[in-house]
Amino acid sequence: MQAEIITIGDELLIGQTIDTNSAWLGQELSLRGISIYRITSVSDRKEEIIDAIDQALERSQLVLVTGGLGPTKDDITKHTLCEYFNTKLVVNQEVLDRVEAFFKQRGREMLPANTLQASLPEACTVIHNYHGTASGMWFEKNGNILISMPGVPYEMKGIMIDGVFPKLAELFENNSIFHKTMHTQGIPESFLAEKIADWEIMVRESGLSLAYLPSPGVVKLRLTSSNGEVDKTKIDAYFAALEFKLPKHIFGYNEDTLSSVIGKMLKEKDQTLATVESCTAGGLAKEITKTPGASAYFEGSFVTYSNKLKSLIAHVPENVIKQFGAVSEETVIELATNGRKLLETDYCISISGIAGPDGGSLEKPVGLIWVAIAHPKGVFTKQFLFGGNRENIISMTILSALNLLRCTLLEIND
Amino acid sequence: MQAEIITIGDELLIGQTIDTNSAWLGQELSLRGISIYRITSVSDRKEEIIDAIDQALERSQLVLVTGGLGPTKDDITKHTLCEYFNTKLVVNQEVLDRVEAFFKQRGREMLPANTLQASLPEACTVIHNYHGTASGMWFEKNGNILISMPGVPYEMKGIMIDGVFPKLAELFENNSIFHKTMHTQGIPESFLAEKIADWEIMVRESGLSLAYLPSPGVVKLRLTSSNGEVDKTKIDAYFAALEFKLPKHIFGYNEDTLSSVIGKMLKEKDQTLATVESCTAGGLAKEITKTPGASAYFEGSFVTYSNKLKSLIAHVPENVIKQFGAVSEETVIELATNGRKLLETDYCISISGIAGPDGGSLEKPVGLIWVAIAHPKGVFTKQFLFGGNRENIISMTILSALNLLRCTLLEIND
Repeated sequence: MQAEIITIGDELLIGQTIDTNSAWLGQELSLRGISIYRITSVSDRKEEIIDAIDQALERSQLVLVTGGLGPTKDDITKHTLCEYFNTKLVVNQEVLDRVEAFFKQRGREMLPANTLQASLPEACTVIHNYHGTASGMWFEKNGNILISMPGVPYEMKGIMIDGVFPKLAELFENNSIFHKTMHTQGIPESFLAEKIADWEIMVRESGLSLAYLPSPGVVKLRLTSSNGEVDKTKIDAYFAALEFKLPKHIFGYNEDTLSSVIGKMLKEKDQTLATVESCTAGGLAKEITKTPGASAYFEGSFVTYSNKLKSLIAHVPENVIKQFGAVSEETVIELATNGRKLLETDYCISISGIAGPDGGSLEKPVGLIWVAIAHPKGVFTKQFLFGGNRENIISMTILSALNLLRCTLLEIND
Repeated sequence: MQAEIITIGDELLIGQTIDTNSAWLGQELSLRGISIYRITSVSDRKEEIIDAIDQALERSQLVLVTGGLGPTKDDITKHTLCEYFNTKLVVNQEVLDRVEAFFKQRGREMLPANTLQASLPEACTVIHNYHGTASGMWFEKNGNILISMPGVPYEMKGIMIDGVFPKLAELFENNSIFHKTMHTQGIPESFLAEKIADWEIMVRESGLSLAYLPSPGVVKLRLTSSNGEVDKTKIDAYFAALEFKLPKHIFGYNEDTLSSVIGKMLKEKDQTLATVESCTAGGLAKEITKTPGASAYFEGSFVTYSNKLKSLIAHVPENVIKQFGAVSEETVIELATNGRKLLETDYCISISGIAGPDGGSLEKPVGLIWVAIAHPKGVFTKQFLFGGNRENIISMTILSALNLLRCTLLEIND
């Protein structure tokens, strides 16, 4: 089964909104064995919407459309769909009741624009939206399916999970694409490719396809089989072979993140973690707590953005900062070991670096980062030098620090 | 001038990578008066790439292609472009020298895959990449332009800024689209629409077009004129009229963020800020420090994720937590006022809430958030109840807390 995704909205074309809906839909469809042929973003103009859906319905059996269904006047998708499918809007009493209940429950007044959201094309099957007021609409044409949903991500996701996937599962059996993705940290794409060149030849000759998915700090390797689950064991074995080769870099598979992986390890050991952060300013703590249940092992942090707070709350002697600088091995050792004591945890990660754009010097350029990990047996430090902009440097730092903790927990020495 | 964007890569279709390149390109092109007709994402397969670029070059004068130019073997874009433009790969000595210098500078060994990156289509004009090893390529066909660039965001951005935009500016005069966007916080889209209904009619009758751009916590209003800068004064006047109506909600325009706006206000007043965070776990500090130069006013934070740290480092009396709970007005008052004293700042924002998915109860449901702002004259608190998932609740909380600080700084009372 082949699907396409169409996202509607001028805000996508002029880049005021990043299209995260397509990525989520792509992921969920792939997991269900549905391949995505194309993603198209078009403006709110009627002709362009019609052009895009007409082309997509010619090519693909399933077309998922998001956006252009909010309560405000610039949303024309619903009217365009009526024209395209040659139908008219009628009030759906069940939807009207639900929209009214939605507002009552939140203690908010219902507005005329919200009432209009219960007017829906007569020719569609309504897919209920339990997280908002714009319904999903399921149309069929020449045996192909088009589903239109609002663009608000959690409303769209709710409609897919509650209504669309169950209905699709009834109608179609899954076909046989199978993916598995391995995640590496701290090794650039071209180095990884060189290191695993022989393995890659072997894998490709076995009929699997391999893709490198690089992003700052993390390179993922995806193996794809078109024989479905049959190849699962083979794929597992190929990946296992790489784990021996690159234990410092391979941290997980599929939905794993560095944050979830270290969380699992700490939980198993029944140990606790804190952070003391300078340039990342809480970004490491935020990343750690993205994993639900992080409160089982994560206690908290000092964000010592200013040098004053490095001394005042993390007790770094002022002369250490004076002599070696805030970005130095000496300072991160103080931050991590003091943080571990003051925050009363088993592990403490500290970070100090120069994220730029300003603050660099010849000796200490932008991108220079020191990380220390205080652990029950001592403290471990590492220096990094990252390229790219401020945002990039910070995200590379966070990932590298988490991987360093992972290696420390596994006692993989440098 | 009309442009299209094509992003290449299976990772986009299966949702392993979110396409942020299109949003950036859309933004930058719009600012230069170039309208974007369509964004298309296709797989790494040759036929699909050719199909997409052929269609786009038929419709639009400028086609920007990103992705599929890395050093690894799954990248076939370069070969596909050779076939499409009927040309062959030749070694470009200048590029080879630059790639070699790139590796030398970083003290990294150059690999054969990197050498291959200096082989480029004979028919293209090479656009140099000063941030990586894959060059940009400028092709022309029947007077239309196609530019292919690597998918790594900061490399693509570098190529656009250093090479493509200057060349486009030479070739074309900008046409006359003019946008301005106003940002609001804390008012749902349908409420905003209802409140400004009369204004909206007036604006539309004056020939401007209006779009609502909702995202969790922030709704943006974009006014667009097709008469270019001529309408700038008119657009400014319409927005100024709204500022009187919604001072609590309107926080800025275009590139402004809540973080940059409060940064500017604090700098002007020469005052300092700290945070004490529970459920947001450093996310507020991270948001504040996204603004370059934040060190002028931001000192740091306590991340008191556990109740133990709320008492241990932020000195909340244990009986306050016991009697009222960690998520309570009493606790956030203690966190903010103690944080302000201990971190020695003029302002301190504290947050405690239930981000879910677990931890909710009938009395204190998931989404319940308390925020306190300790300021030189006292402390101000506010309770929120947000819907959506964990991620959504956290980002709504961060934005609402920043807007609360903004209102406190402006002395807009509730």
